[in-house]
Amino acid sequence: MDVHRDVDASVEEVVEAHERDVEVQDEHGVEYKQSWVDEEQGAVFCLFEGPSKEAGEKVHEEAHGLTADEIHEVHEAE
Amino acid sequence: MDVHRDVDASVEEVVEAHERDVEVQDEHGVEYKQSWVDEEQGAVFCLFEGPSKEAGEKVHEEAHGLTADEIHEVHEAE
Repeated sequence: MDVHRDVDASVEEVVEAHERDVEVQDEHGVEYKQSWVDEEQGAVFCLFEGPSKEAGEKVHEEAHGLTADEIHEVHEAE
Repeated sequence: MDVHRDVDASVEEVVEAHERDVEVQDEHGVEYKQSWVDEEQGAVFCLFEGPSKEAGEKVHEEAHGLTADEIHEVHEAE
């Protein structure tokens, strides 16, 4: 799960950025699964699977350059 | 989406807390949907649906007292 702060983007713009992530993710063995946007507070959360936190960061770098402020290695509590 | 910081809990303990949320959530019109745990950094993310951010907070308060540090009203980017 990564967290982006101080994001000045609409849900539609985040959808577009997410689509660019999906285009390049295979090269890094990553799958961006879901994203959530808080337009008011300017926060974006992205859930991805991949070999490392850095691999997810590389996808964002290559896709649109908007890297996350935090990356968390998470397990789902289910 | 809420975010808990400085959490000293295992995935199993978060699962138990989540189960207590589910037990009381109906009273507040809330549905806790998914949770993710970063054990190393001590962070927990909870995705819920409900009438307000405060309603989600009340569920956590009543269920186990472990309220979140941040609550974000999010839309899924899909």
